[in-house]
Amino acid sequence: MRLDFPPKYTETIGSIKIHSLQKIYEIDSGNVVNSNNQRNNNTSTIAFDNRKLSKKCTKMAVVIPVKNEKLSLLEGVLSGIPNECLIIIVSNSQRTPVDRYAMEVEMVKQFSQFSNKRISIIHQRDPNLSRIFHKLNYTSILDQHSQVRRGKAEGMVIGILLAKMQEKEYVGFIDSDNYFPGAVNEYVKIFASGFAMSQSRMSNIRICWRSKPKVANNKVYFPRWGRVSEHSNKYLNDLISYITGYETDIITTGNAGEHALSMSLAENMQFASGYSVEPYELINILENFGGIIKESSRLHKDSVEIFQIETRNPHFHEDKGNDHIIGMLQESLSAINNSKICNTDITRDIKNHLLVLEQKTNQTSSRTGAISNNHLMDPIKTISMDKFNELVIDSPKLLHQFNASEI
Amino acid sequence: MRLDFPPKYTETIGSIKIHSLQKIYEIDSGNVVNSNNQRNNNTSTIAFDNRKLSKKCTKMAVVIPVKNEKLSLLEGVLSGIPNECLIIIVSNSQRTPVDRYAMEVEMVKQFSQFSNKRISIIHQRDPNLSRIFHKLNYTSILDQHSQVRRGKAEGMVIGILLAKMQEKEYVGFIDSDNYFPGAVNEYVKIFASGFAMSQSRMSNIRICWRSKPKVANNKVYFPRWGRVSEHSNKYLNDLISYITGYETDIITTGNAGEHALSMSLAENMQFASGYSVEPYELINILENFGGIIKESSRLHKDSVEIFQIETRNPHFHEDKGNDHIIGMLQESLSAINNSKICNTDITRDIKNHLLVLEQKTNQTSSRTGAISNNHLMDPIKTISMDKFNELVIDSPKLLHQFNASEI
Repeated sequence: MRLDFPPKYTETIGSIKIHSLQKIYEIDSGNVVNSNNQRNNNTSTIAFDNRKLSKKCTKMAVVIPVKNEKLSLLEGVLSGIPNECLIIIVSNSQRTPVDRYAMEVEMVKQFSQFSNKRISIIHQRDPNLSRIFHKLNYTSILDQHSQVRRGKAEGMVIGILLAKMQEKEYVGFIDSDNYFPGAVNEYVKIFASGFAMSQSRMSNIRICWRSKPKVANNKVYFPRWGRVSEHSNKYLNDLISYITGYETDIITTGNAGEHALSMSLAENMQFASGYSVEPYELINILENFGGIIKESSRLHKDSVEIFQIETRNPHFHEDKGNDHIIGMLQESLSAINNSKICNTDITRDIKNHLLVLEQKTNQTSSRTGAISNNHLMDPIKTISMDKFNELVIDSPKLLHQFNASEI
Repeated sequence: MRLDFPPKYTETIGSIKIHSLQKIYEIDSGNVVNSNNQRNNNTSTIAFDNRKLSKKCTKMAVVIPVKNEKLSLLEGVLSGIPNECLIIIVSNSQRTPVDRYAMEVEMVKQFSQFSNKRISIIHQRDPNLSRIFHKLNYTSILDQHSQVRRGKAEGMVIGILLAKMQEKEYVGFIDSDNYFPGAVNEYVKIFASGFAMSQSRMSNIRICWRSKPKVANNKVYFPRWGRVSEHSNKYLNDLISYITGYETDIITTGNAGEHALSMSLAENMQFASGYSVEPYELINILENFGGIIKESSRLHKDSVEIFQIETRNPHFHEDKGNDHIIGMLQESLSAINNSKICNTDITRDIKNHLLVLEQKTNQTSSRTGAISNNHLMDPIKTISMDKFNELVIDSPKLLHQFNASEI
């Protein structure tokens, strides 16, 4: 994989370096980039060969949150992930009347037999798992019935925990509804390249889709931005402009569904539930490492590096309709608005925007109460891994692991 | 890349082995498939690691025929090809009033600078090239004005020649209008895996798309077969059933636009111009190596292996409309029908089918005279490579080569 390097510019906020968008010139730089090849080239790009990326992949877990996805789509996603990665599927699929989770386990079992991939699969609503979190006093992931909440973010946190349990240094998130295994493969290679570029133990790799095909008038179009990203990016940039005093458009990945974290960073972060998980990731890093909030004692010596990388492949996923768009935007904007680092000017703009959305919601009555659903989950660092590991092993039916012995 | 191996069954016709469709289980088996991993697995699949595929790629040229393609689409295709491959672009784009070929050369120049890819580009209608073919007495590629004909097949033959000139052992063909660089990357890895599986010097790797997205009623569908493939596959299977005496459905890649040939096979083949180039490839192999035509003295000791491999990625390409579909089917069926190995029963069926198509053509008057355009080009083995090389070097503006010194 060859991409822009160094990034064209970087915003530094406290211990955080946010790098501007980097483009990819080739997704496959071959097995060995010889130094001759590297040197002859101008110095504005860097290439990582498959050997180098492979080393990063052996330290990486790829977490796939799943909810009632078509099995063939999920299988396609699995087929695109490099063999070296540990795959962790966290399912929130229905158990009754049809046990879709059992179907997923069956498919994964069969597929892992043929593909020799290392795959773990767990159901996030398994009562055994809730019981474990209860015992560990990690209650911020539980609902009022002491069950793990249903959100995608909750699935991500479970995925991070299972990755840490299996001693992975990096964890990447990939959606289960991608039609192109080749695009999935690119995402993982981008994650690996990002971690290879990072000078810091703590890094966040965020993917910017080149385009997102849409069907209209019986034709396929390739618009640049999603309808939610456009607005979250704007307000996140407003926020950073306010902090630095210089107007910026550096953020292009506010709602990046595909992103990765080094474990050192992931275990220190709070995650927001619901649709705001991706923009809140940025907000939480700013809160914890930006040196903006005086009382925050967590300004580290280590810096946090945020890379934003544009894919070569379009992002072509299952069309889930428009109902979730307004809710998604509401939650994303609320996550920005609710932060202590958000100043009054931006707050006013966002509140006005939210009022307009509120009216739309009432008109279409597609969603209500989306905003109230803004839970924060504690950093998983507080969980004793030995104990978690022990408790998971004590619940033999909780976690299915295929080809695990070869790790 | 891990795929079915050995193939489920094989039809043997004379010196030819046609293998049944092989499916892919993972597109990226990592950098090193350790023998442990390989052994533990059941024996119905084989994995080729990136190290192995890379070795095959260094011996491969990827030929991309181009005709007035959007530059951004073409650039995307280039970005998906592994760095080790030599890329050969054969353009048939317009020169006036806008010189699109000059735009392509400019884009390739800039792109190759950033990507460090080895790219050659040539225009197939360049008068210098026609002159060279005239001097070499290779006139089957020329039209009545002693100019190279406009077809894609002519571009392919030029690509094979340039690959041979640069001593490549394998040559693959990829269309320039693919929206997904990740899918292009998969094609090349399939070619490399096919050549790695082959026991013979002479092999043909044919790609079967998993699906081909179509837009209808403002939704995207993923049908399994193209409208032309369905029919060509049927008649090719009828032909093979007739030859072997057993009904078969082994052919699934009659119109495979993406395919590859070992040079030992490519240089011995005749190519048909127009839309029939892909199905005729199979017919020509049957004619030359099937031992069916008594007078054919070319029954070799070496066998020819034909692999058919199903992609994991859908094939999502630029929609060129429906006008060419009937013409494409007419030419494909004629190529099968005109062969000396085609028996009367099948001839009758195809002729009836062609009559129906003829009526449709007259009704829509979208195309006429498509069938008459069924030229055959002589095997390029007849061309002296030393002389060809010399003549190309003597025409300094004919062939643009970027990063060539690093070959």
